[in-house]
Amino acid sequence: MSRTLEKTVAFQGERGAYSEQACRESLPGYRTIPCRTFEEVFQAVDEREAAVGMIPVENSIAGVVSDSYDLLGVFQLHILGEYYLRVRHCLLGTRAAQIDGLRAVYSHPQALAQCRTFIRKHGWSCNAVYDTAGAAAALAERDDPFEAAIAAELCAELYGLSILARDIQDSHLNTTRFLKIVKDRSVPPKDVACKTSLVFEVRNIPAALYKCLGGFATNGVNLTRLESRPVPGTPWSYHFYLDFQGRLEDRPCRLALEELDFFTSSLKILGSYPEASNWYETR
Amino acid sequence: MSRTLEKTVAFQGERGAYSEQACRESLPGYRTIPCRTFEEVFQAVDEREAAVGMIPVENSIAGVVSDSYDLLGVFQLHILGEYYLRVRHCLLGTRAAQIDGLRAVYSHPQALAQCRTFIRKHGWSCNAVYDTAGAAAALAERDDPFEAAIAAELCAELYGLSILARDIQDSHLNTTRFLKIVKDRSVPPKDVACKTSLVFEVRNIPAALYKCLGGFATNGVNLTRLESRPVPGTPWSYHFYLDFQGRLEDRPCRLALEELDFFTSSLKILGSYPEASNWYETR
Repeated sequence: MSRTLEKTVAFQGERGAYSEQACRESLPGYRTIPCRTFEEVFQAVDEREAAVGMIPVENSIAGVVSDSYDLLGVFQLHILGEYYLRVRHCLLGTRAAQIDGLRAVYSHPQALAQCRTFIRKHGWSCNAVYDTAGAAAALAERDDPFEAAIAAELCAELYGLSILARDIQDSHLNTTRFLKIVKDRSVPPKDVACKTSLVFEVRNIPAALYKCLGGFATNGVNLTRLESRPVPGTPWSYHFYLDFQGRLEDRPCRLALEELDFFTSSLKILGSYPEASNWYETR
Repeated sequence: MSRTLEKTVAFQGERGAYSEQACRESLPGYRTIPCRTFEEVFQAVDEREAAVGMIPVENSIAGVVSDSYDLLGVFQLHILGEYYLRVRHCLLGTRAAQIDGLRAVYSHPQALAQCRTFIRKHGWSCNAVYDTAGAAAALAERDDPFEAAIAAELCAELYGLSILARDIQDSHLNTTRFLKIVKDRSVPPKDVACKTSLVFEVRNIPAALYKCLGGFATNGVNLTRLESRPVPGTPWSYHFYLDFQGRLEDRPCRLALEELDFFTSSLKILGSYPEASNWYETR
């Protein structure tokens, strides 16, 4: 691995995206590389163009980020760690904009939904665009004082916009969980609390999912997440993404995984990694 | 219930949405009522402005329609039935448009994703808008021969557009599952195969989810779906939406539900209803 690669992190979105915010907070000193799609983030890591990929997998309000989960199943990459970003939406306008003169607001559909109360109060029309930072960039280009964008504070500085309002989200518990993905598997340090993530398909047997979870129950391994996603090309079949507390090397986890393996038709370990230190603050 | 209410069905989206297509196929003879949001569909049924609401809950490729699931948990409505709609995307243009002259294509992000191969082949730029029918309506208004919309065939007739290509989706197994929701609970006929849907939160005990599924496993009740959604206001807590084969009145189902009740902190039955007759065709 070259010296330059060592300190690079790829994220999806334009400059100023919440994913870039997560990169800056979680990996200070890393050079951030914007990618157009989640797939390009995975590719950048896979082809060693970036040392790390920072991908959102779940928002505490909106739920899973489906594309990220699906790509975890497709690529042969590993999870190095997780990070919880507190999402704080800002209302951004052009230099000439005033909050009372606004007519329309642009952002990603999830951001619009998360600021529903604030938007309704003002009676603005909503316009869904591909991402929050993109909304800010496009607004700066149009330079329309009757329009605003909802995006991260970072975008004001990047695109020369004014912050018309801060923290406009309905819920102040709005948090996004990110995973840091890397090319090479690493074993997490021994003295820290860990999580392990994996993806499996159940065998075509009665009560398959129940049997898959049995090994975790009887070995006292705590599940933190179970998420199902459609199997591409096989309608109404599902991949299950599962997170549990512990690491592959722990005996109870090993026993649970042996049992799981028996009841699954496919099983892929995505990695054992330290639990984020800010995990409890966001609960 | 008034005579006029009896034959009305509300759907989310503009005229020509895939949800309207599902209404026409599943409830022929019903008057269709377009609603701006999923919440308005639920409200229309709750306030008896429509006899039935037709809501998409899952696409075989994209996965769950989160908003629908969340609203099922919030409103006190009942599931009358399910319907599987084969999604067949069309490329629609203005009368003057030619497929080789197009530069940009507009549609809902899911529809754009589902036609990825076709769009990439032509090198068009993608523009995400709120819904497929809205993309068609807006295109008809702009009357721009260099742009196209991806939407249901129904939109060509409704908005005076030309069909430039049919069946442009990547997968021909692209199917959306709809639920028909009603105000009053009804008991499904005795001689048909049924499903039951419910939503629960697990108690804060070890191996809670495993224990919740135990009654179904030991009583031979087949689960067809398990989906988790964040609990609003309680980050990293989940509602589980569960579908199983059978009806509330069946003895094995009753026993499974009694056991489930013991391990849950909340449990809400959404309804027992006949399995869609076209359920197996879409597998």
